[in-house]
Amino acid sequence: MSTIKSEVLAANAEYAENFGDKADLALPPARGFAILTCMDARLDPAKYAGLAEGDAHVIRNAGGRASDDAIRSLVISHKLLGTNEWFVIHHTDCGMELFDSNIMGDLLEDSLATATVDENGWRNQQTEGGSTDGKYINWLTFKDNAKSVVEDVQRIRSSNLVPNNIPVYGYIYDCKTGKLVEVPEATEIGKV
Amino acid sequence: MSTIKSEVLAANAEYAENFGDKADLALPPARGFAILTCMDARLDPAKYAGLAEGDAHVIRNAGGRASDDAIRSLVISHKLLGTNEWFVIHHTDCGMELFDSNIMGDLLEDSLATATVDENGWRNQQTEGGSTDGKYINWLTFKDNAKSVVEDVQRIRSSNLVPNNIPVYGYIYDCKTGKLVEVPEATEIGKV
Repeated sequence: MSTIKSEVLAANAEYAENFGDKADLALPPARGFAILTCMDARLDPAKYAGLAEGDAHVIRNAGGRASDDAIRSLVISHKLLGTNEWFVIHHTDCGMELFDSNIMGDLLEDSLATATVDENGWRNQQTEGGSTDGKYINWLTFKDNAKSVVEDVQRIRSSNLVPNNIPVYGYIYDCKTGKLVEVPEATEIGKV
Repeated sequence: MSTIKSEVLAANAEYAENFGDKADLALPPARGFAILTCMDARLDPAKYAGLAEGDAHVIRNAGGRASDDAIRSLVISHKLLGTNEWFVIHHTDCGMELFDSNIMGDLLEDSLATATVDENGWRNQQTEGGSTDGKYINWLTFKDNAKSVVEDVQRIRSSNLVPNNIPVYGYIYDCKTGKLVEVPEATEIGKV
C-alpha cells in the first residue's frame, strides 16, 4: 500500500472513531447554502467559511469556475436539496492564471508527465507519451481574477435553470491572509 | 446583509485572525495527491482524509462523478501541479441515487423552485417558471453506488490525458460511521 493511502486510511480511522452524533445528519444542507470554489490545496472551505459537517454543499474544480458541471451541481443543490444562497469563491495566486488552453494543449501533445514552470514559462521534462486530446478541451483559465469571478457569477445568473431569487455572491480568498474579499461587481450581478 | 453571509464573514474573520504561517504554503499540493468526491454537505474531505491546508487537491461535484470537468481538473492537478495519486470517493445515502435525468428534466420543466420528495417520489410545490433546458443535461445520477465508483475510476483510467502511472483508488464514505470503505473492483481497475 502506498504511503499516502495508509496515511489517509489512518486519519480516516481516527475521524470515524470520534464520529459522535454525525450519523444523524440529514442529506439536505442544514444551513441552506452552497459554495463553488477552487480545488487548490491551500483552500479549506469548511475552515475559511466556518462549515460544520451537514451545513452546506461545496463544489470544487480547477479555478472554481462556473462550468456546465458546476451548474449541474448547483441546480441539483437548489432544486432537490433546497439551497437558496450561493457563493463563488476564487483565490489569489491561482494556478489557472499561469497558463492558457494553447499552452496546455501543446504541453500535453508532447507528454502527459508533470511539466515545470519558471520565468520562461512551462516546459516538459519528458517529450514522449503525449496526446492531442488536450487541444479539444477548454481548460477555463483566466488572466484577471476579479473578472473571472464576475464572469462566473454572470454565467450562473443567466442560466435558465437558476431561479432569480437565489443571490450569488462573488469573492476572492486571499492565500496570504486567509481573508475573503468581496468582488462587488460580481455580487451586484448576482443580486436578487 | 443575509444571515448566512454575515455568519460566513464572521467565521472567516476568525479564521484569518489565526492564520499563522499558512501564508507560506506553496501552490502545488505538498502531499502530491487529489481527491474527487461529492458536494454532499455531510462530507468534509479535509477531516475524513486528514488534510491540512496545502496538502492535496479536492475536486467536488454532485455525486463525485468523473465528469469532463472533473477530468479537466485532475489533468491540471497532475500535469501542472504534480499530483501522482488520486482517490474517487462517493458516499452512502447519496442524493444522486434518488432521481434520474428524466425526473429532473420533468421537474425543472414545470418549475425551478425546490421540489419535495416522499415515498411517492419527487413533487413540485409550484408549477410555474420552469425551463426545458434541464432536458438537455445529463445529470449523472446512478442507482448502484459501488458500480458508479467503478465506472468513474474506469473513465479516468481510460482517458488519453491520464498517464498510466497514476494509481486511482475507489472508495465509498459511510455517512453513518465516517469510515472510508474501499471498492476493490474500482481500485483494481485504477491500479498502475
